[in-house]
Amino acid sequence: MAPRPDTPLLDRVTYPSDMRQFNDRELKQLADELRAETISQVSQTGGHLGAGLGVVELTVALHAVFDAPRDKIVWDVSHQCYPHKIITGRRDRMGTIRQGGGLSGFAKRKESPYDPFGAGHSSTSISAALGFAVARDLQGRCPEGLGDAVAVIGDGAISGGMAYEAMNNAGHLGKRLIVILNDNEMSIAPPTGAMSNYLSRLYTEGPFEELKAAAKTAASFLPPPFREGAKRAKELVKGMAVGGTLFEELGFSYIGPIDGHDMDQLLAVLRAVKARADGPVLIHAITKKGKGYAPAEGAPDKGHARAKFDVATGEQKKAKSNAPSYTKVFASALVQQAEMDEQICAITAAMPDGTGLDIFGERFPKRTFDVGIAEQHAVTFAAGLAAGGMKPFCAIYSTFLQRGYDQVVHDVAIQRLPVRFAIDRAGLVGADGPTHAGAYDIAYLANLPGMVVMAAADEAELMHMVATAAAIDDGPSAFRYPRGEGLGVDMPERGQVLEIGKGRVLKEGTRVALLSFGARLGEAMIAREELEVKGISTTLADARFAKPLDEDLILRLAREHEVLITLEEGAVGGFSSQVMHLLAHQGVLESGVKVRPMVLPDIFIDQASPREMYEVAAMNAPQIVAQALDALGVASLGDVRDTA
Amino acid sequence: MAPRPDTPLLDRVTYPSDMRQFNDRELKQLADELRAETISQVSQTGGHLGAGLGVVELTVALHAVFDAPRDKIVWDVSHQCYPHKIITGRRDRMGTIRQGGGLSGFAKRKESPYDPFGAGHSSTSISAALGFAVARDLQGRCPEGLGDAVAVIGDGAISGGMAYEAMNNAGHLGKRLIVILNDNEMSIAPPTGAMSNYLSRLYTEGPFEELKAAAKTAASFLPPPFREGAKRAKELVKGMAVGGTLFEELGFSYIGPIDGHDMDQLLAVLRAVKARADGPVLIHAITKKGKGYAPAEGAPDKGHARAKFDVATGEQKKAKSNAPSYTKVFASALVQQAEMDEQICAITAAMPDGTGLDIFGERFPKRTFDVGIAEQHAVTFAAGLAAGGMKPFCAIYSTFLQRGYDQVVHDVAIQRLPVRFAIDRAGLVGADGPTHAGAYDIAYLANLPGMVVMAAADEAELMHMVATAAAIDDGPSAFRYPRGEGLGVDMPERGQVLEIGKGRVLKEGTRVALLSFGARLGEAMIAREELEVKGISTTLADARFAKPLDEDLILRLAREHEVLITLEEGAVGGFSSQVMHLLAHQGVLESGVKVRPMVLPDIFIDQASPREMYEVAAMNAPQIVAQALDALGVASLGDVRDTA
Repeated sequence: MAPRPDTPLLDRVTYPSDMRQFNDRELKQLADELRAETISQVSQTGGHLGAGLGVVELTVALHAVFDAPRDKIVWDVSHQCYPHKIITGRRDRMGTIRQGGGLSGFAKRKESPYDPFGAGHSSTSISAALGFAVARDLQGRCPEGLGDAVAVIGDGAISGGMAYEAMNNAGHLGKRLIVILNDNEMSIAPPTGAMSNYLSRLYTEGPFEELKAAAKTAASFLPPPFREGAKRAKELVKGMAVGGTLFEELGFSYIGPIDGHDMDQLLAVLRAVKARADGPVLIHAITKKGKGYAPAEGAPDKGHARAKFDVATGEQKKAKSNAPSYTKVFASALVQQAEMDEQICAITAAMPDGTGLDIFGERFPKRTFDVGIAEQHAVTFAAGLAAGGMKPFCAIYSTFLQRGYDQVVHDVAIQRLPVRFAIDRAGLVGADGPTHAGAYDIAYLANLPGMVVMAAADEAELMHMVATAAAIDDGPSAFRYPRGEGLGVDMPERGQVLEIGKGRVLKEGTRVALLSFGARLGEAMIAREELEVKGISTTLADARFAKPLDEDLILRLAREHEVLITLEEGAVGGFSSQVMHLLAHQGVLESGVKVRPMVLPDIFIDQASPREMYEVAAMNAPQIVAQALDALGVASLGDVRDTA
Repeated sequence: MAPRPDTPLLDRVTYPSDMRQFNDRELKQLADELRAETISQVSQTGGHLGAGLGVVELTVALHAVFDAPRDKIVWDVSHQCYPHKIITGRRDRMGTIRQGGGLSGFAKRKESPYDPFGAGHSSTSISAALGFAVARDLQGRCPEGLGDAVAVIGDGAISGGMAYEAMNNAGHLGKRLIVILNDNEMSIAPPTGAMSNYLSRLYTEGPFEELKAAAKTAASFLPPPFREGAKRAKELVKGMAVGGTLFEELGFSYIGPIDGHDMDQLLAVLRAVKARADGPVLIHAITKKGKGYAPAEGAPDKGHARAKFDVATGEQKKAKSNAPSYTKVFASALVQQAEMDEQICAITAAMPDGTGLDIFGERFPKRTFDVGIAEQHAVTFAAGLAAGGMKPFCAIYSTFLQRGYDQVVHDVAIQRLPVRFAIDRAGLVGADGPTHAGAYDIAYLANLPGMVVMAAADEAELMHMVATAAAIDDGPSAFRYPRGEGLGVDMPERGQVLEIGKGRVLKEGTRVALLSFGARLGEAMIAREELEVKGISTTLADARFAKPLDEDLILRLAREHEVLITLEEGAVGGFSSQVMHLLAHQGVLESGVKVRPMVLPDIFIDQASPREMYEVAAMNAPQIVAQALDALGVASLGDVRDTA
């Protein structure tokens, strides 16, 4: 383990107010110490690294100039807020980050008053900050507890439609609002889209005339003593021209680009803006993801999220895995299908690595589309591709597909277009916590007419479901699978097309039926063995489909067992609701079978390991056993023998 | 009734190919005839009028220059497509528009090959058209059936985030794609937002230098013979300068503004673009909503949607109503609350009239926010307002709230912020059909932890629910209510705060329990009377809350009746699923009570009157009676007497 860094100034800062003792030179040193501390902390815990390192100076400058928590600093996505957490009263708990009972890896309102608005998903910060700004002005210019509203948003996040909606509204309202565009040319993957090209042009291609004109605009906005400094600042940043017309056309005063790692520039600009802004201002800061830590700067993802690592070498300490990840299985299964069918293409919304489409993209670059952080467009673009005769696989995490929900309903389902949704990170996801839980997709997809909804019980099943989705050409389909590794089951040579709406029985029994939809099947298997040991004959079935339901199977299970337990890694309203609806209308519910739907509970579950989270959710094998015993009215082995 | 207009040229056009016989002068006359025909048709049927009149010339020009259905013309929202329908084989059925069994009021794939992509919600057209363009290029430049992709999008729709996401992606991909910005300075309400201001500046404020530069850009794009014409065209439009930098920065070639009612300009520009475009092109056409029909042009909403009307006077033939609309009741109840509480504010996404917030806005202009067509931003902006201490009411139709679903989950529910969702148009909505059905909100809201979900059984209940939502300050809440008029019940002086999670029993009975959530209560009342007449003692209850459930009431109803019928104007996964989940885990499901959830069926129901649509859905009083009788196992009065 590397020694803890020496941090004499940082050791004197528990809260931002402690920074008032420092002059600008000391603030620079504080930033250096904060960077070292961030690297050291994340090396111990793992977590998001690159983004935080990119905003170390910005974090110090913001807290030096603004007055949190009265001023509201809203971090977009907020995985870059580790340095912020360190200097807002949470340094001593950084060792617990992303762990059960510990700090969240994101900004979180209930964690600290310095986190005025939580996040996890992208592109929300300008909307939220505008809300704070308007609330402030409605309640008098500076009511108790409400000062400036500052949104810090990345160049990737600004490609999200809601960021544009928010700028459009903010420019119209004209309220004092500060948006800092943290332009690191890199969200998780290299950014894509015209906005990204535009931002690049702002500091690489602008002609001298533009530079002059824009410099005049920006400088005239600043107090006179700063004007010369601003011009100098601009010249400092390599090859930079200034512009920002696009933002100005949306009603923002544009300042920049500035060097987001130059404390002098940052402090000068922020102080000027604080002193003078009387409307929406956009400060365009150029930063470097992973800044100041060579192993991160040199990594393809710029150290986006790391396992624990060795500070000196950057080497990550990942546990060896025994089975391929679901993500990789999806990717290779899709490549396999695409080799046989040139209509197959794939869409990701800025998550090529996370979804495995980087692998697909290497093999089929022309059939791979990264649309940026733009799930709404991703879904309807896929619908257009389908209407044009292609077979699009739209790969979006369960939690992010919520962003494209209306498009799934309106553009895909109503038109019955054969878009295939590959839904990774279904169910509870571990360290990313509640903002990333894939809890709702079964419910919000299975009640759409014509949608086929599948869930993979293991990685071999996932291969079959990719093949099945490829074959479904008369309407939309979706298949979900969890984060992480598969079970290590034998893998088929290639995926087989499953019969639509047919489940499978793995073990026949007589008293209890466990009907699993998705990856709880492993826990259900363990639970079944436990029940059998207790003398309770138990059927184990994999529904495979939440829609269409395997009605024959479900009716038989309900009719032939005392207890029917449904299992799904999702909230109420999904698979179990489809099952109970069927049983009710078939007159089977009242037959006496004890139906026990096991779904995610009615709480947002804080981060922990997935297993711990499912323990909280009461959905692991022991709890399945307990549910069965409780339904049977027996609590112990003795009872079971008596009633068997 | 006004005489049918004289339309000699239009009478020779069944399909766009029939227009090839006409020269440009005749095309102008055709447009005039098409306008007259549109007015005449809509006067007979009612429907969207203003938007269609604004694009008559554009419709003719597009079909004269492009080759549909091979070229894909995608109408955004598509309520402006009546003229398009008239000249694409559907003139003879225009008398059935928006009626049961008739033509849809929107573009619809299954209705015609000339409708390559359906719509109803806003801002989807560029994504869809880009999908067609990419599908075309992936399958070789011009495969069978796939030609140019043309999106026609309004200036209101372009404020939707997904339009920006799509432009961002299209500018990046660089495919040949034609976007026509139909700028009528008016979506449904006057447009709002910085984009709108920007568009206005494009033709009112630009300095002469800009005009020159941009004219050069646009003209150089056009074939030489047209260059002079383009310059002249620009000069024709009053006070116009040219620019479009914003679009150019997003990677589009910008042409415009042009006069969208001048066929010479339209034909010249479209022909030039068709001949020469090799990337994404945006044509900025200025049009006038309601153009050419004085009663529409003069109306505040420019004749957006009309009842049947007298062509000569424009007077609408609306049936007299006996009860206030739910929308008006909501608005006045909110005004009442806001008079007592200055923290209350209201947000609409470009629907001030439709939501009733125009009434609120007149009384409290500073507390009313129209954010434009931007539901995602609307929800998170409301969350920011709530975090800043305000009491926001976010008024969005059920179907459009789907656009902000992720924001409801991520920004409101996870943070437990007291945003109040006022959900109008819940359930089936009539003439607008399946794209506007409010079918899913109960399901997608009631499984969110901490959310309070109410539905109003009548307009007095709605008043109470507005008061109740105003009082819920520790977390989010939602209340839904249907389109149209209330039942005419006695109205209270002011709304009372309801006890959270408590329903009410209206009539006590013994055999059947009807448990309604929302406005089916009226049908349930009729059904109960019918059942009582048949000798079946029936309890009638109003759940009021889908979350939290009135567990005591529901358990009692299940335990004390032979049959429990739940009723809701929503799809499976909502109220009934919550009820069955409760009953299952309380061990009551297996007690023998016959639970029959009545929900919207698993089909998208085409437009008709709401009553007819609920007939298709099998959710009117006779069908409730039939459901009860079927559950009881009796089919006739004789049977009932036997078993009673």
